[in-house]
Amino acid sequence: MSSAETISSLGENESLKRTISRLNSSSSALVGPGDDSAVISAPDGKFVVTTDTLVEGHDFKTEWSSGYDLGYKAVASNIADVAAMGAVPTSLVVAVAAPGHTEISWLEAFADGLRDACEKLAPGCGVVGGDLAASEQIVISVAAHGSLEGREPVLRSGAQVGDVLAVAGTLGRAAAGLALLQSGNQDAIHAYDDWVNVQRRPQPPIAAGVDAAKTGATSMLDVSDGLAKDATRIAKASNVTLQIDPLQLQGFEAVIEEAARAIDAEAMEWVLTGGEDHALLATFPADAKLPRAFKPIGIVLPQGAAPLMLGAQPLPELGWDSIRG
Amino acid sequence: MSSAETISSLGENESLKRTISRLNSSSSALVGPGDDSAVISAPDGKFVVTTDTLVEGHDFKTEWSSGYDLGYKAVASNIADVAAMGAVPTSLVVAVAAPGHTEISWLEAFADGLRDACEKLAPGCGVVGGDLAASEQIVISVAAHGSLEGREPVLRSGAQVGDVLAVAGTLGRAAAGLALLQSGNQDAIHAYDDWVNVQRRPQPPIAAGVDAAKTGATSMLDVSDGLAKDATRIAKASNVTLQIDPLQLQGFEAVIEEAARAIDAEAMEWVLTGGEDHALLATFPADAKLPRAFKPIGIVLPQGAAPLMLGAQPLPELGWDSIRG
Repeated sequence: MSSAETISSLGENESLKRTISRLNSSSSALVGPGDDSAVISAPDGKFVVTTDTLVEGHDFKTEWSSGYDLGYKAVASNIADVAAMGAVPTSLVVAVAAPGHTEISWLEAFADGLRDACEKLAPGCGVVGGDLAASEQIVISVAAHGSLEGREPVLRSGAQVGDVLAVAGTLGRAAAGLALLQSGNQDAIHAYDDWVNVQRRPQPPIAAGVDAAKTGATSMLDVSDGLAKDATRIAKASNVTLQIDPLQLQGFEAVIEEAARAIDAEAMEWVLTGGEDHALLATFPADAKLPRAFKPIGIVLPQGAAPLMLGAQPLPELGWDSIRG
Repeated sequence: MSSAETISSLGENESLKRTISRLNSSSSALVGPGDDSAVISAPDGKFVVTTDTLVEGHDFKTEWSSGYDLGYKAVASNIADVAAMGAVPTSLVVAVAAPGHTEISWLEAFADGLRDACEKLAPGCGVVGGDLAASEQIVISVAAHGSLEGREPVLRSGAQVGDVLAVAGTLGRAAAGLALLQSGNQDAIHAYDDWVNVQRRPQPPIAAGVDAAKTGATSMLDVSDGLAKDATRIAKASNVTLQIDPLQLQGFEAVIEEAARAIDAEAMEWVLTGGEDHALLATFPADAKLPRAFKPIGIVLPQGAAPLMLGAQPLPELGWDSIRG
């Protein structure tokens, strides 16, 4: 039996060739992969750009996430940041550092994940360039680009007193999935594999970002470090206090409560501090008709003693820190 | 004595805050760092984008390169790919993965290097976003963007039979610097520290890329994996054979010959296979007046048995492979 082909045995050129051939193309690419740079259309004379990184052992474990999962997640987490500006994702560049002994089949599955996430979450978006480097641990860095289609970007800093605070997407499910994996409880992992799959392959509500912008959202971000931490970011950037109505979080809590009981965890903690669902959190004028994907969860108050309140209680800025964990 | 502050002791937010405050701003940034994405101006309705990664232990050693050097090099190596399209670098996003015990002073120096490289090599270009993550080894991924200012991009595939092959920038100096460092010969390292400094902080001829495009360059790329390997890329993409005149490489060789003798190395090998000077290699119509920065080194022939010739001899595709080294 011949041993498995690795990226080291194939070399950079051949490894990239096999990977690129599996990708969908970006409908905005004037020049795609293969030259020193790609050239991307930006019809309204501007583009949005963001970058985010996944590090083995810190952001993922290869025992828990396949190459496919990681490709999918790398796209989802980055284009959520594009959507949070009210933009349509158009193109990605992907830098992968991986050990030389990594099998080419892992990289091919990673490319499949990139492709499927683009096609499912943001049709028309595709990978336009990349880089493959040798390292001791897997590090995946993506830069994602989007088009505002002539609209103004929706920033974190525009929330106005009297606005409604609303969320699109799910809260706490990815955190539930992570806790289930960490528990090692195979029965629970099997019983609640829906949440494990949200952890592996997040499904951010990308189109809702554009809908929010068109409806006049005054501020928006993607909840990547947890509701408490990210809502505090809007509050601080906008010089307001956000007050979340705890009753409005019960629906998010209820869905994952059974899983929480199975491993003796707190569902509400997942809802408040879990980030990786990549929900969109936005504020809208009180008289706006919220886009269908958005559910109201609170209101915007004048700046008070605490930036964030859960009912009558200040809510501390708990959540994920990408350095400390 | 208090212990040094690390990125782990400060956390992500504070570490980023200290770093971002040291950066210059991009003159193309409509929205800079601090939101989910940046917004960049693209007045001609398109932009170029490329990505490149530096990995500790593979692309650099912290004993040989300071944080400042690495920031400088990360900018230089990426904007050379922008320049190679004939574009003006406008903006960068920078993702850094580093161990939690990394001192904040290292990250601050890295930011200083990013800033100084932008200001020196591509005024107006700046960092518009970034990401900081925890890892076991340092991995620096940059995505760089540029404006074609209404021009068509210069690709690798446009070389025409009869064109002149020319190079802007230096060849072999960074390879000399690396070989000197690897030799451990402190006298030689000291005597030829100019080449060591090219290895640490490359000085690619960024403006020459635009000059080449304006002069009608038919193909271009940045020499990042060595002249032999990168010239072969143009030849293959353009379906031609490139013939380099060995006499025209003597000037590049002469400059580093003394250093080569000092550590018993071959200067011409550095010229042919050393990449990290990030020179620009381009083809021009025979009747074009070459931009000042470009020196003719060969001609474009009809596709022959070998894609690349050094005089009458086929030149194999030797050079750097980012996976195999």
